[in-house]
Amino acid sequence: MLRLAPALTLLATPALAQEPDRRAPSEIVAAAPAGEWVAIPASDLLVMTLAPDRDGNPRVVTIQLMPPPFSQGWVGNIRKLAAAHWWDGLSINRVQDNYVVQWGDANAEDKAEAKVLPPGLARVAQSEYTVPFYGSDGGIEDTLQYDREDRQPVDAYSSTNWHWRGWILAGQRGNAWPVHCYGMVGVGRDMPPDTGSGAELYTVVGHAPRHLDRNIALVGRVIEGIEHLSSLPRGTLPLGFYAKAEQRVPIVSIRLASELPAAQQPKFEYLSTESDSFARYADARANRRDPFFILPAGGADICNVPVPVRRVD
Amino acid sequence: MLRLAPALTLLATPALAQEPDRRAPSEIVAAAPAGEWVAIPASDLLVMTLAPDRDGNPRVVTIQLMPPPFSQGWVGNIRKLAAAHWWDGLSINRVQDNYVVQWGDANAEDKAEAKVLPPGLARVAQSEYTVPFYGSDGGIEDTLQYDREDRQPVDAYSSTNWHWRGWILAGQRGNAWPVHCYGMVGVGRDMPPDTGSGAELYTVVGHAPRHLDRNIALVGRVIEGIEHLSSLPRGTLPLGFYAKAEQRVPIVSIRLASELPAAQQPKFEYLSTESDSFARYADARANRRDPFFILPAGGADICNVPVPVRRVD
Repeated sequence: MLRLAPALTLLATPALAQEPDRRAPSEIVAAAPAGEWVAIPASDLLVMTLAPDRDGNPRVVTIQLMPPPFSQGWVGNIRKLAAAHWWDGLSINRVQDNYVVQWGDANAEDKAEAKVLPPGLARVAQSEYTVPFYGSDGGIEDTLQYDREDRQPVDAYSSTNWHWRGWILAGQRGNAWPVHCYGMVGVGRDMPPDTGSGAELYTVVGHAPRHLDRNIALVGRVIEGIEHLSSLPRGTLPLGFYAKAEQRVPIVSIRLASELPAAQQPKFEYLSTESDSFARYADARANRRDPFFILPAGGADICNVPVPVRRVD
Repeated sequence: MLRLAPALTLLATPALAQEPDRRAPSEIVAAAPAGEWVAIPASDLLVMTLAPDRDGNPRVVTIQLMPPPFSQGWVGNIRKLAAAHWWDGLSINRVQDNYVVQWGDANAEDKAEAKVLPPGLARVAQSEYTVPFYGSDGGIEDTLQYDREDRQPVDAYSSTNWHWRGWILAGQRGNAWPVHCYGMVGVGRDMPPDTGSGAELYTVVGHAPRHLDRNIALVGRVIEGIEHLSSLPRGTLPLGFYAKAEQRVPIVSIRLASELPAAQQPKFEYLSTESDSFARYADARANRRDPFFILPAGGADICNVPVPVRRVD
């Protein structure tokens, strides 16, 4: 029996039941009407400018921060760190193949050498790794368009998956949490109960390391320029740290886009995960009917249904 | 309820039931006794030597070919192509972020310019993408140590997963097939019913594109040097093809290791997927109990339980 992943069950809407859409996922996204796209506020965008590459090409990476109610303690810290220009002059310190690229203070482990953090950063509790699914105070139940708790689980890491307001969530036992898919940005930390301040960040550049879910805070995702991170030379020390200081790519600056002059603020939109086009796109990701394919899979894991994001110029 | 992925149910052996192993997966693998490692024959290794990088560093990628009964029509072609030194002087032509790196003849699409293939290559049928699970002639049933058909599915792409003789398989409806995990090597092809000759190859350098399973032949996996592919600059044309010929990394040679002088033959072993250490390793991948983790996932998707491979010098 071919099965649908829980996240894809919204496909069973009348509009879709009529006849299968044979377009490729990219074609469905390209044809989505303007009204199905949602603008991402400049205040939710973090613009990381790296030193140019060896050929002088610019390298800019844009990150979208997680919305409430997820990870807001760390997201608040990151806003403060960006406002303090704290990352400027620091570097990318770790590139581990099929895992993560990490940036921040290369001397963070050395108390004598570590760069002083700005004042007022929150110390966030481990309990903030998840959010109560039910309940009116801080829960996300009311904001979900559909509840798939009655579906068979096909995610090895949770009992339920959702696309929710442009993000991917997993849930179990009344809690929901963001998911370590490719391009997601998380908070480096020491041994528990430390949860990290947000000063040391990483992004996923390999197969989704889902075992990190609920063990590390996720604070956003790279929406443009991830190739400037994923194509960096791998570090040769344990965990992919670079052996020599000169191998580290310098960070010129990290800014909230809302702090940039208006003309320099990048503008992005995501495809509403509650839209008809998104439902068709998700269905097509799980059931490729375009001419290259001979056998639709009949399902998709949640990280293989990323939320489409586009630059608006 | 925390669940085990089907591939991990061999953990429910008496030895493991006694007390949880709190070591990290890497520690379990490092401590595995010599008798649990299986030598990979030189005749199953493909050694791809790329041109040195800009700093003159050598770049060698080693691929282990799929064993019978999987994909043997294409694997046979690849042996012939390597014996004919067909790839020598060709190049890496496509690097698509979070997807694949592809190599072969940059002019393959142009009949007038394409490099002539060696004679005697098989034209392989689409039916060879899978193998009958049951049956004495070509089936794999007798060689599986355990059958998990009775388990709840947690794979969105199949009803069953296995680790089998050092490889990852998925199965459904009496058939089994290899899986598009990170580092797997597949056969580029044109539109169906073409299945590709094996002359155009790719490897996965992102989240497992499982929708390609049973739609494209998988012929092996990169076991060393994947960083020489995954860290290449991404191509800027559609599908990640390079815009300029000079961006393509030249292939110096691709050889079966068994054709190399004995002293130059690389030696590798994999951790027997039927061993006690592998069972402990797989359990630890699904249930991280080492000190960094606060909450074991209780499961793992099959691509997050890669088979350990080591170089023996």
